Amino acid sequence: MPPNSETMEYRIEKDTLGKVEVPADKYWGAQTQRSIGNFKIAQDINKMPREIIRAFAYLKKAAALTNLDAGVLSTEKCELIARVCDEILDGKLDDEFPLVVWQTGSGTQSNMNVNEVVAYRAHVLNGGALTDEKKAIHPNDDVNKSQSSNDTFPTAMHIAAYKILTEVTIPGIRQLRDTLDHKAKEFKHVVKNGRTHFMDATPLTLGQEISGYVSQLDHGLRALTNTLPHLSELALGGTAVGTGINTPEGYAENVARTIAELTGLPFITAENKFEALAAHDAIVEAHGALKTIAVSLMKIGNDIRMLSSGPRSGIGEIHIPDNEPGSSIMPGKVNPTQCEALTMVAAQVMGNDVAINIGGATGHFELNVFKPVMIYNFLHSARLIGDACVSFEEKCARGIEPIYENIRKHLENSLMLVTALNTKIGYYKAAEIAQKAHKEHKTLKETAVELGYVSPEEFDQWVRPEDMVGKI
Amino acid sequence: MPPNSETMEYRIEKDTLGKVEVPADKYWGAQTQRSIGNFKIAQDINKMPREIIRAFAYLKKAAALTNLDAGVLSTEKCELIARVCDEILDGKLDDEFPLVVWQTGSGTQSNMNVNEVVAYRAHVLNGGALTDEKKAIHPNDDVNKSQSSNDTFPTAMHIAAYKILTEVTIPGIRQLRDTLDHKAKEFKHVVKNGRTHFMDATPLTLGQEISGYVSQLDHGLRALTNTLPHLSELALGGTAVGTGINTPEGYAENVARTIAELTGLPFITAENKFEALAAHDAIVEAHGALKTIAVSLMKIGNDIRMLSSGPRSGIGEIHIPDNEPGSSIMPGKVNPTQCEALTMVAAQVMGNDVAINIGGATGHFELNVFKPVMIYNFLHSARLIGDACVSFEEKCARGIEPIYENIRKHLENSLMLVTALNTKIGYYKAAEIAQKAHKEHKTLKETAVELGYVSPEEFDQWVRPEDMVGKI
Amino acid sequence: MPPNSETMEYRIEKDTLGKVEVPADKYWGAQTQRSIGNFKIAQDINKMPREIIRAFAYLKKAAALTNLDAGVLSTEKCELIARVCDEILDGKLDDEFPLVVWQTGSGTQSNMNVNEVVAYRAHVLNGGALTDEKKAIHPNDDVNKSQSSNDTFPTAMHIAAYKILTEVTIPGIRQLRDTLDHKAKEFKHVVKNGRTHFMDATPLTLGQEISGYVSQLDHGLRALTNTLPHLSELALGGTAVGTGINTPEGYAENVARTIAELTGLPFITAENKFEALAAHDAIVEAHGALKTIAVSLMKIGNDIRMLSSGPRSGIGEIHIPDNEPGSSIMPGKVNPTQCEALTMVAAQVMGNDVAINIGGATGHFELNVFKPVMIYNFLHSARLIGDACVSFEEKCARGIEPIYENIRKHLENSLMLVTALNTKIGYYKAAEIAQKAHKEHKTLKETAVELGYVSPEEFDQWVRPEDMVGKI
Amino acid sequence: MPPNSETMEYRIEKDTLGKVEVPADKYWGAQTQRSIGNFKIAQDINKMPREIIRAFAYLKKAAALTNLDAGVLSTEKCELIARVCDEILDGKLDDEFPLVVWQTGSGTQSNMNVNEVVAYRAHVLNGGALTDEKKAIHPNDDVNKSQSSNDTFPTAMHIAAYKILTEVTIPGIRQLRDTLDHKAKEFKHVVKNGRTHFMDATPLTLGQEISGYVSQLDHGLRALTNTLPHLSELALGGTAVGTGINTPEGYAENVARTIAELTGLPFITAENKFEALAAHDAIVEAHGALKTIAVSLMKIGNDIRMLSSGPRSGIGEIHIPDNEPGSSIMPGKVNPTQCEALTMVAAQVMGNDVAINIGGATGHFELNVFKPVMIYNFLHSARLIGDACVSFEEKCARGIEPIYENIRKHLENSLMLVTALNTKIGYYKAAEIAQKAHKEHKTLKETAVELGYVSPEEFDQWVRPEDMVGKI
Repeated sequence: MPPNSETMEYRIEKDTLGKVEVPADKYWGAQTQRSIGNFKIAQDINKMPREIIRAFAYLKKAAALTNLDAGVLSTEKCELIARVCDEILDGKLDDEFPLVVWQTGSGTQSNMNVNEVVAYRAHVLNGGALTDEKKAIHPNDDVNKSQSSNDTFPTAMHIAAYKILTEVTIPGIRQLRDTLDHKAKEFKHVVKNGRTHFMDATPLTLGQEISGYVSQLDHGLRALTNTLPHLSELALGGTAVGTGINTPEGYAENVARTIAELTGLPFITAENKFEALAAHDAIVEAHGALKTIAVSLMKIGNDIRMLSSGPRSGIGEIHIPDNEPGSSIMPGKVNPTQCEALTMVAAQVMGNDVAINIGGATGHFELNVFKPVMIYNFLHSARLIGDACVSFEEKCARGIEPIYENIRKHLENSLMLVTALNTKIGYYKAAEIAQKAHKEHKTLKETAVELGYVSPEEFDQWVRPEDMVGKI
Repeated sequence: MPPNSETMEYRIEKDTLGKVEVPADKYWGAQTQRSIGNFKIAQDINKMPREIIRAFAYLKKAAALTNLDAGVLSTEKCELIARVCDEILDGKLDDEFPLVVWQTGSGTQSNMNVNEVVAYRAHVLNGGALTDEKKAIHPNDDVNKSQSSNDTFPTAMHIAAYKILTEVTIPGIRQLRDTLDHKAKEFKHVVKNGRTHFMDATPLTLGQEISGYVSQLDHGLRALTNTLPHLSELALGGTAVGTGINTPEGYAENVARTIAELTGLPFITAENKFEALAAHDAIVEAHGALKTIAVSLMKIGNDIRMLSSGPRSGIGEIHIPDNEPGSSIMPGKVNPTQCEALTMVAAQVMGNDVAINIGGATGHFELNVFKPVMIYNFLHSARLIGDACVSFEEKCARGIEPIYENIRKHLENSLMLVTALNTKIGYYKAAEIAQKAHKEHKTLKETAVELGYVSPEEFDQWVRPEDMVGKI
Repeated sequence: MPPNSETMEYRIEKDTLGKVEVPADKYWGAQTQRSIGNFKIAQDINKMPREIIRAFAYLKKAAALTNLDAGVLSTEKCELIARVCDEILDGKLDDEFPLVVWQTGSGTQSNMNVNEVVAYRAHVLNGGALTDEKKAIHPNDDVNKSQSSNDTFPTAMHIAAYKILTEVTIPGIRQLRDTLDHKAKEFKHVVKNGRTHFMDATPLTLGQEISGYVSQLDHGLRALTNTLPHLSELALGGTAVGTGINTPEGYAENVARTIAELTGLPFITAENKFEALAAHDAIVEAHGALKTIAVSLMKIGNDIRMLSSGPRSGIGEIHIPDNEPGSSIMPGKVNPTQCEALTMVAAQVMGNDVAINIGGATGHFELNVFKPVMIYNFLHSARLIGDACVSFEEKCARGIEPIYENIRKHLENSLMLVTALNTKIGYYKAAEIAQKAHKEHKTLKETAVELGYVSPEEFDQWVRPEDMVGKI
Repeated sequence: MPPNSETMEYRIEKDTLGKVEVPADKYWGAQTQRSIGNFKIAQDINKMPREIIRAFAYLKKAAALTNLDAGVLSTEKCELIARVCDEILDGKLDDEFPLVVWQTGSGTQSNMNVNEVVAYRAHVLNGGALTDEKKAIHPNDDVNKSQSSNDTFPTAMHIAAYKILTEVTIPGIRQLRDTLDHKAKEFKHVVKNGRTHFMDATPLTLGQEISGYVSQLDHGLRALTNTLPHLSELALGGTAVGTGINTPEGYAENVARTIAELTGLPFITAENKFEALAAHDAIVEAHGALKTIAVSLMKIGNDIRMLSSGPRSGIGEIHIPDNEPGSSIMPGKVNPTQCEALTMVAAQVMGNDVAINIGGATGHFELNVFKPVMIYNFLHSARLIGDACVSFEEKCARGIEPIYENIRKHLENSLMLVTALNTKIGYYKAAEIAQKAHKEHKTLKETAVELGYVSPEEFDQWVRPEDMVGKI
């Protein structure tokens, strides 16, 4: 199993299946190298997400500290392991994690990639050479001590998921939510046509319309926050099948506490380790909230693009920023490109949801082996929503302005103002007025008077758009 | 396992597990009755689709005829079985099939329901009584002869799927396609604004716009037709695991030919019976075409609703029929309700697709046991698309008319007519004209002349919407 | 628009678009009849769910009571309306609601169906005749007073969704959860092989294995319960576009309180009515929890079917009840049919989720017009999960028993017991033992001793399955 | 809009909206730079796929050649453009395409990225400097001549999709199919237990079992091939809205022919350009075939992992290669990791399908603006399936070997051999034998004789597994 380039320098590493040639300057070992050779699937585009590698660094450090406390790891080894983990967290070893998502479904190979890099880099930090056959730290017996891929990978999944949600996704959504809320308040008195079934309806204010989006995002944030407790449960301590074989007393609780300290996030040990290895319903559940938010964002993005449509033969009730030339052939065209990126993201998240569902549903017995595909899609969605909300906020939502001229024109023409007469003359007569006005291209007022149902004064008193929008 | 009502009369039937009380007047037997008791899941709303029951009738009749020819069934028994099958096809025994979709995943219980009803009704037709312990025809040994649920149910799936596609779905789509094609030709010279990114773009004709929908449906019909050959392959003759155990020589080919004759459809025996029992990729593949058509219908339905939006502050370039009052509160409101039904159907079909994918993917070894859920969703989609296309055609598409006044007004105002100047003065100067006209609320012509890029005569000669729509 | 049958008696009703022939003995009116004629889409299989009709009855009664309190409806009218609503709730008028899911996307026609039936039945209760041109109660002006389809239909959606979750879904899941919990405790000391990657792994107890399922359902129940507050928000009072036009002071809060009293469920008025009409994220969110549970059930159903596989060449570690003969061709065969129904249900729910997402994402402006398809799928899933859990519990889970003979045989043969030696002799030597034993078809013990890594006494002391399952 | 690094050198470029600072050494221009600043969404992981950039190179070269022939582009400009396109195809300019998928939904910015890079690199090839304000080639007026993003991007989609399917996906599937076919033939006489409902069933041969997988892939390849004609239709020549504005006579046909020549693939001009811009049903349709294949691969991957399960307490009827140590904690464990990668890929493709459906369904009027998300998911799936099939073939399928000992043991024990007696003694007596043998842990033969239904000789003559597998 030689590396690709013939001229590449390599050294020999071995694992329980035998010897493997590894690039001489890389910290990884035999099992990582085997995985490169065994899984040539989209290697250029689907690396194991960096968030997972970083999460592993927290986890390995916490495990070492906990093992030290439990008296099963020496101080020296613990410190070496911790130092390498810090290097990983600082991004200094990013090139040492070449594996792809499409590997073993337990993520064992990425766990071993981390074990190997930590062990061999530690050996070098300790003054050794990569070519030394015996290293100061052993990938399995030291770095992986009291652990299994089966509990580390799901732990890394939860750490990475919780972190990205709280650091990227939620702040991004909140940024958009706050700007929309500001706009809702700014435009709370801008009375305009409502539209139901894409057809003219009774009036509301632009602020009210936007407040609906704010409420959607508020509910979405609540839904997402509701899923965090399940994500806060860590599998670590379950080891091979959930029983905690080969762990010291109190290990599960202690290592979770240590991870909580290192990350500053409220992680706890999972209440049931058998579930924690065999199923990833926490990921499914939390992504269910993400896709709910995607659904909201699709609605919001569509509305904004439609409200800003035109400039001359669309709906044209709001203006959004002109960020770039819109067309390579139509000069002067400007398009709602942020809405397009946002809604494409929404489509992606809804697709990712299905991949996660299928992965979550197809675990067997003591281990779900769709872990990498699940977390890959989860992190993708979490990142996309967070980034897209920020982009949409900065480049679009922030610049929403009413186009008063169009708003006024539409409002004055609306036949649905007739609804105000329901309680005065009844639904049927009101309908007669609207239908006749529509057919004869007349105003509601002249038609209403012509039909003799109201006087001009009554009409002006009863049919006032600004009185039809309720309490503001 | 008593029937629900205490006062109900019942008789005793038995199967290999023992005795069961069955309603005295029903033709079904022990296994059907057990299934009623064992699967109390959505019993009022999810009966096994009637199309499957009818397909079984073709199949059981064909099997009897083929068994007769093979010399393993008597003429008398064959005739009795065939008579009952004809009664089923005539809808006379609809109440005898009470089982739900949510039963065993092989559909064994529905196969046995049919076997029992055919056997016991045959016994009655033969002059016997339902209470006779020994019946003239045996559900397993006669009606099910040379068959297994494992090959009959997938055969019924293909018969039902092929029939509904050719009798309901394809004719429905074609009806809509033909009307749209008629409209495309009728309006081929109605020049109007194009819209890209929901923004004003260069012109095209209403007929061209609609021709895009026709082309979508033409491609969709081709895609659907491409899937029929796989559906034409029948599993029958594979029996328990695909090997054809307990079938006479030549049975698979003969029974497929007989089914083809009875249904008038080009069924053949499956080239590989192991696939035919263990996987239902033909259903997955054909539903892939249905969901492609659903995607098309969503686009078409959305476009029509948006083009007809208004009446006064929407896009309003076409009129569609007013079929019903649109609002319980807003008098005179009319809505694009057929578009709404059509697009809801599209959403359903896209959901059904996922259920089918998961069912199709989760078979094991020699048998897929998601057969009922797969065919339930398939038939649902096929029916919905067929019916919804007819409804949309009759109540909406057929009545589409241009609103010339709005079309003309939009076209005259369009800034994107400037695109015609690209090849004369270059993209950048053309953009300058459009941007300035937009900013200053002027016409393109006055701005173009004001900037000195063209003379009024040149403008009138070069910027002619009717010359911008290409060959018609 | 005549009813289908030529010989049917009919009367004339009218609405704002004109006259319509209605079956003489039906309580519905013109708009219902129009909808029957306009939407011939899957009319035999996709009636608007009964749960929605019942929810409307609560809502119409509550609206009448609130209107009475507000002084805008007479006591007499209120009482008549309430009486009919009670009849609907008692199931006496089930045949009066013939409309299908595939109608206008606002559900206006079902709202009008209810308005018409309530008005005309009230008129009859009041001593009138259906043929009277003028009725005592007007569908729009009385029954629909202070309402719009746009706020009633989403209110009915939430009432129906909340009720089915609390009455069917959650109790069903809990019933299964409790039985599994009982089994987990019963079998907590039954040590058996674990399996990861579908391969032999270190031991755990059958109780531990089942406890993972319990934990999944516990988390699922929590996830579902978390979504109830959003569902408890009612749109009623928003009327046409969310502004509450044509409602009396305090109406929204009062009518929500009344609905809460009538249903005994904690409904409140929605904090933002614009969202409540324009988006149905509460449905999307809650269904996200349902699909999470579906994912869990797929895992559980698969595990049970695999653990019980055999009887002689499968895994065969548990026995589940023999409910019915399993095969129409293979005598004596018994299959895990409840697992099959359960997993088919799971597939359906995952498909329904996508239909709901698409419906939820495709609303525009002030109104989502995918309401019927969304609630149809929601109620379907809620019902399926509830019913299937009960069926699975009663007919399968309750009867799970260990097959001790097979469990013991598998455990004794397991090579993965070697894991217990990791902490004694290191991972690499342990691997050598396992690999050699596997290759040479020997026991771990003889190989371990042969290799000289442990003494027989050490082996017996260190490698004890019952010590490898952690704390129980 | 400055580039990120403060110390970076830059030059000034401009577009119709004004000036932009661009990194001094990059060939791209103002619009590319704007897009980098405007769309900070997953920039490190979601670059526009390289396949699209390469497809653009074919397209731009073909357009230049066609423009030359039409007399609207000079020979000198054409040659310069073609030289840069060749450089792109040779991978020399890969770093010049920094934009992400999440941009404008028309892909305009990637089209402009290509236009700018081609123009400015051409200018440099022509001896100019990037800092020259006036360049020899203009991005819009020359490189984009006779084109619009609206027809180029969908053209690039089809080129990229067609190429990857024929170069990666189909060959990959075929490689797996051929190896499985070889195995099917190799093991055609290895009689083993069948399994239906995951339960023991009548026998078949291992070759027959595998032949089912071959048949699935054959059908899948046919389904995929059926979708190629729609993909072969190119939008180019439709320009802005499908009318072909600003294209010379015969351009659409000629440019398609040129692309066909350059790529060696049978591209033709789309029959309807309005569809070709406004909808991407060809992508939806072709991905429908990809997800059908994903469904097949999930089944195959699951079967292989289950058949190879064990080594001692699973099904264990086949052996697959040991590619790597399987566990970081359980020594000597080997897992079906290729099955896991393959089935994870299947899950991803099923998720991608939904993203594509939603994107395809949400186009409006003359332009679908979900183009990048659609092609991103399409290329992802096509690549994953191709690569994963090759990996699975090389590292797993190729090494499948029967484990004869287990196969024989299972077969001898099977109770379902009793099925052979159906035609001799009837289904009910056969069932009695099987049930009794199962209950009493006896062999079929001793039970059958004990019950007096057959003689030992008859049993041996009638119940022969090798006679129960049909014609081979």
